[in-house]
Amino acid sequence: MTTLAEAMRRARELGWSVLGRTSPNPAVGAVVLDAAGQVVGEGATAPPGGPHAEVAALAQAGERARGGTAVVTLEPCDHTGRTGPCSVALLAAGVARVVVAVPEPTGQAGGGAERLRAAGVAVELGVEQAEAEDGALAPWLLGVREQRPQVVWKVAATLDGRVAAADGTSRWVTGPDARAAVHRLRATCDAVLVGSGTALADDPQLTVRDVPGADHQPLRVVLDRRGRVPATARVHDDAAPTLVSRAAGPAELLAELWDRDARRVLLEGGPTLAAAFLRAGLVDELVLHLAPQLLGAGPALTGDLGITTMAGALQWRMLDVTTLGRDVQVRYRPTRHTGSPRPTEEGN
Amino acid sequence: MTTLAEAMRRARELGWSVLGRTSPNPAVGAVVLDAAGQVVGEGATAPPGGPHAEVAALAQAGERARGGTAVVTLEPCDHTGRTGPCSVALLAAGVARVVVAVPEPTGQAGGGAERLRAAGVAVELGVEQAEAEDGALAPWLLGVREQRPQVVWKVAATLDGRVAAADGTSRWVTGPDARAAVHRLRATCDAVLVGSGTALADDPQLTVRDVPGADHQPLRVVLDRRGRVPATARVHDDAAPTLVSRAAGPAELLAELWDRDARRVLLEGGPTLAAAFLRAGLVDELVLHLAPQLLGAGPALTGDLGITTMAGALQWRMLDVTTLGRDVQVRYRPTRHTGSPRPTEEGN
Repeated sequence: MTTLAEAMRRARELGWSVLGRTSPNPAVGAVVLDAAGQVVGEGATAPPGGPHAEVAALAQAGERARGGTAVVTLEPCDHTGRTGPCSVALLAAGVARVVVAVPEPTGQAGGGAERLRAAGVAVELGVEQAEAEDGALAPWLLGVREQRPQVVWKVAATLDGRVAAADGTSRWVTGPDARAAVHRLRATCDAVLVGSGTALADDPQLTVRDVPGADHQPLRVVLDRRGRVPATARVHDDAAPTLVSRAAGPAELLAELWDRDARRVLLEGGPTLAAAFLRAGLVDELVLHLAPQLLGAGPALTGDLGITTMAGALQWRMLDVTTLGRDVQVRYRPTRHTGSPRPTEEGN
Repeated sequence: MTTLAEAMRRARELGWSVLGRTSPNPAVGAVVLDAAGQVVGEGATAPPGGPHAEVAALAQAGERARGGTAVVTLEPCDHTGRTGPCSVALLAAGVARVVVAVPEPTGQAGGGAERLRAAGVAVELGVEQAEAEDGALAPWLLGVREQRPQVVWKVAATLDGRVAAADGTSRWVTGPDARAAVHRLRATCDAVLVGSGTALADDPQLTVRDVPGADHQPLRVVLDRRGRVPATARVHDDAAPTLVSRAAGPAELLAELWDRDARRVLLEGGPTLAAAFLRAGLVDELVLHLAPQLLGAGPALTGDLGITTMAGALQWRMLDVTTLGRDVQVRYRPTRHTGSPRPTEEGN
């Protein structure tokens, strides 16, 4: 007997496990319980064109789904795209109850709950909604609201906020555990972004390496307006696709990535690029890796933000703190600077 | 029935509770268990001239100490200073067993275990020694080794390592919970130290405020070689004693404070003073309060350290991470730069 809360937590985990491989579709998780409350099926959104989470979970459950409960992080769709409506699949499987975290926020695919209820299925919406909205669905939900990808800024800095020494060296600010965490983070993203300065200074490969189960490489993106990064740079090897963008600024770049179906972008650039995104209000999450080192000189983690007084500081809200070996990871969301409603309104 | 581990943990807590008020004596804690293993007495070092921890705990226990066990963080002294030898007090009380964390490291007061054993008392030395050495005894033990006070550097910085904005404003980098923690930290110190720059820019009072049970004010110390800080500065109010030092550098200043019996100094100065202590290898612990703000400009938490490349960075070892309201506290000990064996050998 699995409780509803356990099933919903598992559904959120399933959604998280496919984040970075479902865009432009949401990373949904689904768990099917039989009439006795046992888990008989689990599923998560497949890459575009493949089955949605509910369909995958129902396929695993088979006849055991009849009279059971489907627990799903997002309201089942009711429209036919590349796959048939999930609402129809749930009806065909004969589930008696559907428990949903987040109601479908778009008009386009909505209506699944309505069709299910009309057919006599008990539907609950909004169960542990905040947890699901904050998890694997966050990038997609932000995209629905703002028509741009979510931007996660990952930065590794010393205790005095420096990302490199005065001579430009930066290997290594953080230790192996933190660097491994970056690869896991990349695996959850559609694109990994640096500026030409970082590409030239560090020559990073920007791939996902040594992450068990990761079968996907995010798009490597270099913002290189002046064409400074040579074809011999590691970012141009054949380990993953690469986009060299000449976008005029963050908003234009994000629009370009949006059009390529990116919904979650990892910003790994240096201080100049970070400052451009911060000034544009286009950072949605900050993953800070704090290394137990002091340099006393060298570039800071962000360039000038036009802030001259304490009261003008950009404010963040801590999400969680963890230790990664010798380093500390702290995750933040912005509070005061919450991004523009539309990227096209944003100056760079 | 109290376990030995519980009694030793309690003894360490008792020692910590008086840290900052016992110098130049060590902040020792003691617990007396009766023959049945019940706690019948607790004590901690009184201010200089008052009873040592064992004597206080024995006084509380009275006759119930007979045949019991004394659990104490530091080996009982065997010499007569301003108070009589603790070894004699333990014998007079008739305890059957003495359990000690840290053996007496000085020749001067040592021998307590020897006298007790000679009288038939069972003595165990080195029980949970590392925990005790790392706690309230650390400043005193460092003093024994290096004949200088322990230096704890407390610094509040933004995520980009800045202690103030470009215009010099720094109220407030951290929130009320972190600021309250600073007052608790000050209460454990003999002296609180700033440079003239901080005294002029922030005009801090540097007192212990709103700490329940704190009945002591550390010495306020301003390093002010050029006599820049006016008599009207808050650091000169009558809330606590103040020393204006014209020492030529950190080592000379610490020697001055050592001669005034300070064994634990809180460095709250700005980047210039911090850099001077770091360059001299005279920081023993770092308490970093990391505020969820970004400034993009303004002074960094330390001035230049003469380090130009990543491989030269000062290395630290994390002790613990805690959250203080919206802020994160991380405590570190230095690893590579472990201080000079003697402050007088150190250049500034």
